Amino acid sequence: MTQAITTPNEGKTSTVKGLKCKECGAEYEAKAIHVCEFCFGPLEVAYDYDALRRSVTRETIQAGPNSIWRYRAFLPVETENPIDVGTGMTPLVRANRLARRLGLKKLYIKNDAVNMPTLSFKDRVVSVALTRARELGFTTVSCASTGNLANSTAAIAAHAGLDCCVFIPADLEAGKVLGTLIYGPTVMAVQGNYDQVNRLCCEVANTQGWGFVNINLRPYYSEGSKTLGYEVAEQLGWELPDHIVAPLASGSLFTKIYKGFQEFINVGLVADKSVRFSGAQADGCSPIAQAFRENRDFVQPVKPSTIAKSIAIGNPADGIYALEVARKTGGNIESVNDAEIVEGMKLLAETEGIFTETAGGTTIAVLKKLVEAGKIDPEETTVVYITGNGLKTQEAVQGYIGEPLTIEPKLDSFERALERSRTLERLDWQQVLV
Amino acid sequence: MTQAITTPNEGKTSTVKGLKCKECGAEYEAKAIHVCEFCFGPLEVAYDYDALRRSVTRETIQAGPNSIWRYRAFLPVETENPIDVGTGMTPLVRANRLARRLGLKKLYIKNDAVNMPTLSFKDRVVSVALTRARELGFTTVSCASTGNLANSTAAIAAHAGLDCCVFIPADLEAGKVLGTLIYGPTVMAVQGNYDQVNRLCCEVANTQGWGFVNINLRPYYSEGSKTLGYEVAEQLGWELPDHIVAPLASGSLFTKIYKGFQEFINVGLVADKSVRFSGAQADGCSPIAQAFRENRDFVQPVKPSTIAKSIAIGNPADGIYALEVARKTGGNIESVNDAEIVEGMKLLAETEGIFTETAGGTTIAVLKKLVEAGKIDPEETTVVYITGNGLKTQEAVQGYIGEPLTIEPKLDSFERALERSRTLERLDWQQVLV
Repeated sequence: MTQAITTPNEGKTSTVKGLKCKECGAEYEAKAIHVCEFCFGPLEVAYDYDALRRSVTRETIQAGPNSIWRYRAFLPVETENPIDVGTGMTPLVRANRLARRLGLKKLYIKNDAVNMPTLSFKDRVVSVALTRARELGFTTVSCASTGNLANSTAAIAAHAGLDCCVFIPADLEAGKVLGTLIYGPTVMAVQGNYDQVNRLCCEVANTQGWGFVNINLRPYYSEGSKTLGYEVAEQLGWELPDHIVAPLASGSLFTKIYKGFQEFINVGLVADKSVRFSGAQADGCSPIAQAFRENRDFVQPVKPSTIAKSIAIGNPADGIYALEVARKTGGNIESVNDAEIVEGMKLLAETEGIFTETAGGTTIAVLKKLVEAGKIDPEETTVVYITGNGLKTQEAVQGYIGEPLTIEPKLDSFERALERSRTLERLDWQQVLV
Repeated sequence: MTQAITTPNEGKTSTVKGLKCKECGAEYEAKAIHVCEFCFGPLEVAYDYDALRRSVTRETIQAGPNSIWRYRAFLPVETENPIDVGTGMTPLVRANRLARRLGLKKLYIKNDAVNMPTLSFKDRVVSVALTRARELGFTTVSCASTGNLANSTAAIAAHAGLDCCVFIPADLEAGKVLGTLIYGPTVMAVQGNYDQVNRLCCEVANTQGWGFVNINLRPYYSEGSKTLGYEVAEQLGWELPDHIVAPLASGSLFTKIYKGFQEFINVGLVADKSVRFSGAQADGCSPIAQAFRENRDFVQPVKPSTIAKSIAIGNPADGIYALEVARKTGGNIESVNDAEIVEGMKLLAETEGIFTETAGGTTIAVLKKLVEAGKIDPEETTVVYITGNGLKTQEAVQGYIGEPLTIEPKLDSFERALERSRTLERLDWQQVLV
């Protein structure tokens, strides 16, 4: 029997049983709390999987909207009218040209660089968090962000008519700042790194009565990332891949893709299968990769210094859980330097026509490194998660992708320029051949 | 009986009858030509609608892919394996907050700011053009572009493994230049305006043997815009709206949405209905709006000067056809100045969480102007086409959307900043009330 949460306003039911501490198992009502009173462990949403098994089929999902809300039964909300701005169901692109370049046989890109509305996977978690925030009665929403989350919170709050105040590090990329301001929220630019922003927000959450999507609403928020698991399973024809590669910031995304796969197995939507989970970090902020390499079971915080700002979390909240997932599935966690990140962005753009931000460049560069080290089998069906759009981190590639050839609007000016560029290309090839 | 085009390689059939001159009706084979030999009129693709009526139903469309290729039978290609990178099926968002602000009752935004892969409606026309280019044997593709088209051609060519050379005006927005270079094409930055770029490309098309998507492949390319009509009809539950508002650059998009609606009526997929077509231009490049205002049946070319660079075509190829559509449907063509364009961008972002580029700001500002002038009935179901993403034209809003509040990572620094911002807000309101 489903233990249903109901609110007087709506009378809707959900399959959520409540919150549960990931460490000690203590149970809580599904309110705006995120830390266990007893052991300070993180709280996670618990579901009635028997009810899900009885009520959800591939057909009920396929009959749902073309967005993350087709998986509403697996998401921690009560309403049947969630905030749906078309988020999710991004393409799973068969990446044949990149695969050939790397020597893989069956490679897919899950492309959240074109997620709606703000072009990153954060639209998934924010759609869930703000829907829940509204249910819990919040009128102002907030977040501590490295950029993408601020874009998404501001945009979806605007659509939903919620007041919004976001916190970002003061040194963010211009596109991320402007891509937040445009929606008209209050923007607090904090002179410090993300970890300092986050600490400040924990204090503010205690004093202002706001819904912080990644603090007091974190248990609901983080569940949104499970949809990146569900969608890949559905898009592969209700099958799981052999190996996934995803970026690691707080570690939450990684563990929630895992949870998504496990839930689909659990309720019988896909066949049981072990999937290897590999994670990507930037050298300049690689606390989880360092712990993996050194075989530690704790994560030592670091001070971030990398162009991959959206994943530059020096003290990752879910770092140990990400470690655990990589280890128990036989995956790896690797890091790459800033030059490799830029090369990763270019490689994906030139082979697949996908322009990703630095986080995606990190993931592609780690994919390449893992293949070269023999840590991804060419026969494995591999899915790489691209989580954000390159138009937001233009600074990272400026100066590394060449320049246009400036010409006059005359045929002979064009022909001379074309000849010059072909000569340069030939010289490039000669260098390659030498 | 369908007059099928077949190629030895594939043996696929299509419902395309050939090309037909829009002016004199002369017929041609479906090759890489775009101008009538007899009267110099533009060529357009002709279909066998009897065959379409027999073979296409709502169900066959819905069983197709979640992209423009679900309408393949209405598109001028032969292959059953088109270049499909997830283009199309962008959200049709019910814009309640914007509607309330403007005093409308049923307003929708067709949001191609999140089209795949390069965040503008151009991905539709380029997906069709490059699929056809491949069928016609081209190995290098090209275009004359105001920016979005260059992004799209370079990205989709990269995915498809075609060589690519694009032509842009040298003074384009940084995001559009970088958002092309990243895919590794040859980029020719022409010192002149779009109309000069276009004239140069017409010469190059005659000398290089390349497939120019919007020149020698234009009849195929432009058909891709029909999908913006089909999708709206399908997303409204197989019904047409009462009124549409779309930006006008060359005028092609406008006329092809019209063609899309007419085709759906013609083959019985939607009920017959008259839809009013209204067009939007920027004051700094409004040759079609001027002709409309002055009740002329010819379009006088102008020299563009506006921040809305993506629609700054001073000599619009399909201007007279756009005029004709607006007139015969009882619509209007209006223009707005650069300040109104920026306000339009902000209005859409603040009410609906959609960040559009200058072209979209133009369309929203014209929508507002038409409503205020009583030219859109509040009872009409109105669809506004947003065709591109604001991250590509950041220059346009920089300096007009405020600044973040810079604070130290301390609670009291935050609280002081919040108090200041609330005081400013109160002062703003007092000014409004005075």
